[in-house]
Amino acid sequence: MKRHGIILFGHGARDARWAEPFERLAGKLRATRGDPVSLAFLELMTPDLPGAVAAQAAEGCDTVTVVPVFFGQGGHIRRDLPEIVERCRAAHPGLKIHCATAVGEDDAVLDAVAEYCVRQVGE
Amino acid sequence: MKRHGIILFGHGARDARWAEPFERLAGKLRATRGDPVSLAFLELMTPDLPGAVAAQAAEGCDTVTVVPVFFGQGGHIRRDLPEIVERCRAAHPGLKIHCATAVGEDDAVLDAVAEYCVRQVGE
Repeated sequence: MKRHGIILFGHGARDARWAEPFERLAGKLRATRGDPVSLAFLELMTPDLPGAVAAQAAEGCDTVTVVPVFFGQGGHIRRDLPEIVERCRAAHPGLKIHCATAVGEDDAVLDAVAEYCVRQVGE
Repeated sequence: MKRHGIILFGHGARDARWAEPFERLAGKLRATRGDPVSLAFLELMTPDLPGAVAAQAAEGCDTVTVVPVFFGQGGHIRRDLPEIVERCRAAHPGLKIHCATAVGEDDAVLDAVAEYCVRQVGE
């Protein structure tokens, strides 16, 4: 059976509580699908992306979609992430690895953020 | 007339394109309200939060809500931001400054991100 994993890719931070929304997001996705959903971080937290990709390959995924959970697309997404993904592809030549645009570029995500802002001012 | 400004507070980055989602978000909010909406950054981009607060005070705001456009709440939000907000309050004693929880803590925002992830895997 073909399995299609999702890896939520975040920046990482020193404070463990920083990862809470990422864990909640992974939980929401796991509640709706049977294939693996995991987290990976650029720095300061583990696993890194190569580790998360290797784990999903070991779980039988033939395809992995990496979703950058970032608002803006700066150097981390435009330069660092493609290099890491290329290394992952070289390490797992049988695995298809797709890389999505950062979630902050999605209009529906921005609409939800705008609605949150409006709720905060009590209008 | 009382004016209630919104300041979207982001991390900042070296690449100017990083700020595009923040600008789109500000545009969405400006389309729905007449009071000021502006951006402010922790580092690498301008204006900083004290500059944005001063500008909204000069525009006649008596209340400003700062919304951290971050997913996770690490040191930047738990330690740096409260210190900056306290400095802004000291500089503008007549201004009410509210500080919201980071947008990534909002369940509807996370739902929108989860839906985006599902669309990326084509399910």
